[in-house]
Amino acid sequence: MSKKVMAINCGSSSLKFKLYKMPAETVMVERMIERVGKDDAIFRYTYQGKKHQATQVVTDHYVAVHLVLDMLLSERIITDYSEISGVGHRVANGGSYYSDSTLINAEVEKHIDQLSVLSPLHNPVNLVGIKAITVALPHVKSVAVFDTAYHHTMPLVNKIYGIPYKYYAEDGIRRYGFHGPSHQYIALKTAELFPDHSQRIISCHIGNGASITAIKDGRSSVNSMGFTPLAGLVMGTRSGDIDPQIILYLQHQAGMSAQAIKDMLNNQSGLLGLSGISNDVRDLAKIAADSTDKRQERADLALKVFAHQIQFYIGAYAAELNGVDSIVFTAGIGEHSALVRELACRNLGYLGAKIDADKNAADALSIETADSTTKILVIPTDEEIMIARDVVRVAQLE
Amino acid sequence: MSKKVMAINCGSSSLKFKLYKMPAETVMVERMIERVGKDDAIFRYTYQGKKHQATQVVTDHYVAVHLVLDMLLSERIITDYSEISGVGHRVANGGSYYSDSTLINAEVEKHIDQLSVLSPLHNPVNLVGIKAITVALPHVKSVAVFDTAYHHTMPLVNKIYGIPYKYYAEDGIRRYGFHGPSHQYIALKTAELFPDHSQRIISCHIGNGASITAIKDGRSSVNSMGFTPLAGLVMGTRSGDIDPQIILYLQHQAGMSAQAIKDMLNNQSGLLGLSGISNDVRDLAKIAADSTDKRQERADLALKVFAHQIQFYIGAYAAELNGVDSIVFTAGIGEHSALVRELACRNLGYLGAKIDADKNAADALSIETADSTTKILVIPTDEEIMIARDVVRVAQLE
Repeated sequence: MSKKVMAINCGSSSLKFKLYKMPAETVMVERMIERVGKDDAIFRYTYQGKKHQATQVVTDHYVAVHLVLDMLLSERIITDYSEISGVGHRVANGGSYYSDSTLINAEVEKHIDQLSVLSPLHNPVNLVGIKAITVALPHVKSVAVFDTAYHHTMPLVNKIYGIPYKYYAEDGIRRYGFHGPSHQYIALKTAELFPDHSQRIISCHIGNGASITAIKDGRSSVNSMGFTPLAGLVMGTRSGDIDPQIILYLQHQAGMSAQAIKDMLNNQSGLLGLSGISNDVRDLAKIAADSTDKRQERADLALKVFAHQIQFYIGAYAAELNGVDSIVFTAGIGEHSALVRELACRNLGYLGAKIDADKNAADALSIETADSTTKILVIPTDEEIMIARDVVRVAQLE
Repeated sequence: MSKKVMAINCGSSSLKFKLYKMPAETVMVERMIERVGKDDAIFRYTYQGKKHQATQVVTDHYVAVHLVLDMLLSERIITDYSEISGVGHRVANGGSYYSDSTLINAEVEKHIDQLSVLSPLHNPVNLVGIKAITVALPHVKSVAVFDTAYHHTMPLVNKIYGIPYKYYAEDGIRRYGFHGPSHQYIALKTAELFPDHSQRIISCHIGNGASITAIKDGRSSVNSMGFTPLAGLVMGTRSGDIDPQIILYLQHQAGMSAQAIKDMLNNQSGLLGLSGISNDVRDLAKIAADSTDKRQERADLALKVFAHQIQFYIGAYAAELNGVDSIVFTAGIGEHSALVRELACRNLGYLGAKIDADKNAADALSIETADSTTKILVIPTDEEIMIARDVVRVAQLE
């Protein structure tokens, strides 16, 4: 029987919402609230094919969830909350506790709260979203879908850092990996579309946040993010990997505070910091192509460093997998920037992976040349459907 | 005409010395002093085929240099210092100033001193060695041979970190790369021995300090060490790359001081920290093979993490070079640990690189299987001969 299932994805200052009919996976309505916590939060939604946008005060995620719920009634998408069968919440960090999505109860909420120390920007707002739903819809089953859970299959050599063992065993300082629902979606979709090219997948989730996963037989072997989502690739405003001693040098030599460094590495680095212009690949690509623009050189540098890091991880993960059958690009930049894909794949002829310029420019599904032995794919990700599916499975709504 | 040339390599607590006849490259005598600065410094030397060892007080590197010089006379290896034509000093960090070895003058000494802020453990002692020689042998030409110089050919995308551009442009915070003389020696030796397999070389200098260089047509494209020698691979006692946010977490959450973290990452991490036993691969390999030893699991883990990181960089650098012709192992562990080489190369069949177990066990020069298209080589490094050659070239002693 058809069930109505909600997927809620609370970001640090945003809320994404979709209401599905399951198991058909039909999207009944979707909502997006940006700038949560500001006086001029932006409320976007699509209903019956029309896009709407409004600006209003949204003080916090609790209010944001209620705004979304209210509109379900006011627009008569549902007539009563009892029609909702289940709710899935994306939760950033499930730590070492959760290797799968799980039904939310008091203990799970306690763990999510405890793990806020590892993911201070996300776990607390995830918990606010969970509590708002629990209060408004006390009858529904809620499921937590962790960004980290998919990566529990990583072998210990990929989980542990080269620091004293006690930090792993006692303090939980290890690689967790993130973007789990997205990478898992890519693993499933690639296997569905190209079953003969799905044994060894390198999944490149390249958005403002970016990570790459080496996937073997559908399971995560390693993800480029680490203890936190700062690690790995150069991103929109995040540094990715740097010599760790740079931090100590800046503290000692330049007298920077830990807080200032944290802000610099998370919010002022990456494409933004390298270019001094923008964290938006579209802006940078335009400037990098304009020889009359004084900022050309820096925009070009930022894009090349960004793409070079993707190349670096593709190479490293080819070794992890002893070769590669499909390299997949997904998320905002991965799905839409032919330039970044082209730069990232320039040196991969040795893997039998070459990009066809026309297919790439068209954002085609399969963008490798005819003589490539490795597939290069562009697949739109869908984290919300992974959440909705997990609600059905874990809450046993079938 | 034959010239006598000295190569001096001052480490943080050691001094290596060789006296060569050039251009024949004959080693006349070599010396090694360990535990410089201690009451029980160890003095080793080999002369006329005999090995000697003594223990004595060596208060600092100035004294160490003089001890070495005195013995040249007392053992009548030379009869007067005027016989020495040139001296080469290994210097850890030449920063952005030096893309080649250089004759030492007051300005060079000033730069080495300024760069002590980047390499506090090495540049100051390098300078002490230089000054000791200048005082004792005022007539000779001295040449500084920088660990960083070989890596000046790295393209900007590999030099720069994904942090705000000003740190690169104004503060010199960038990847420098280290072990230059060793990697350059490997590039030359590989080209000499296997000219058809020397276009794309991955040079793995695996000692207690360890770094990997991608070498294209004899030039460094990128080295795994970074701003400092902490970065890159897991090493004997160094962590290598970690999520940089771990440092801020340990400061904020565990209240660790910057100094304590620096000490932990540099001196208590790596093989030592992971195993809790030793930073010596030989010790760990023995324990990892002994199922009756309670420490087996941790020794095994440390070795696997260590080798896995080597694999990671070989993979990444294959992408840097668009394939690889030779993978070369050198330095203490690289030359002598068949186990580490075997673990590091297990997954490299996709590169046409497979290890032959018998050749590997014998530390043979060429250890790949007959059907491998990529060479896997074991080549003893020789940093001192690179120093002596640069003295002849830069001081124009021919």
